[in-house]
Amino acid sequence: MKAVNLAEKLVQVDAHWHPHIVAGYNGNDVMVVRVEGAFTWHSHPETDDFFLVLKGEIDIELRDRSVTVREGELYVVPAGVEHRPVARSEAHLLLIEPAGTPNTGDPATAVRKVVI
Amino acid sequence: MKAVNLAEKLVQVDAHWHPHIVAGYNGNDVMVVRVEGAFTWHSHPETDDFFLVLKGEIDIELRDRSVTVREGELYVVPAGVEHRPVARSEAHLLLIEPAGTPNTGDPATAVRKVVI
Repeated sequence: MKAVNLAEKLVQVDAHWHPHIVAGYNGNDVMVVRVEGAFTWHSHPETDDFFLVLKGEIDIELRDRSVTVREGELYVVPAGVEHRPVARSEAHLLLIEPAGTPNTGDPATAVRKVVI
Repeated sequence: MKAVNLAEKLVQVDAHWHPHIVAGYNGNDVMVVRVEGAFTWHSHPETDDFFLVLKGEIDIELRDRSVTVREGELYVVPAGVEHRPVARSEAHLLLIEPAGTPNTGDPATAVRKVVI
């Protein structure tokens, strides 16, 4: 394995909200994604959801409040907690989830993650 | 939980090679650490070792080669692989390991991680 340059990987990400896998860690996918606009409300009953903002900022809306996560900041949504990430302008994120976790919380609507 | 500002957390790290826990993710510690100089050769038989360079650069020496990991780059040392991180000048890292993993690979010599 080579070192993974996140900025170089993000250039290859062709669509918003489409996570691309850049590494594996103990059965988890380490992913980069470009986001803009509002994602869907969802939760992951069996796993925490790790967000690190590499560029820009996002709001992680929870049912009772909203958490702004800026460049150089991270946030972990606990398992089972409903959330909706929203980016007012394009942001770049590093995500970590167990391999096979549907990004929408629902296999029927999840995008297929791509390895780059 | 609030968003975790990594630069603000790093100001609180008082010694090199002393990981400070800033968040939890599925039983893993998410940590920041300031490093300089050479760490000890070690391995973690049961877990991969996740490194993300937030500032500066490090070499992750393996027995057969060395991998330079620069700011904005990540590297995952597979479980069981001997490695020695070396920083020629101070670098800041984000680390992820299962809670309780000894940083030196050996509970007898490991530092106690601090939650900040």
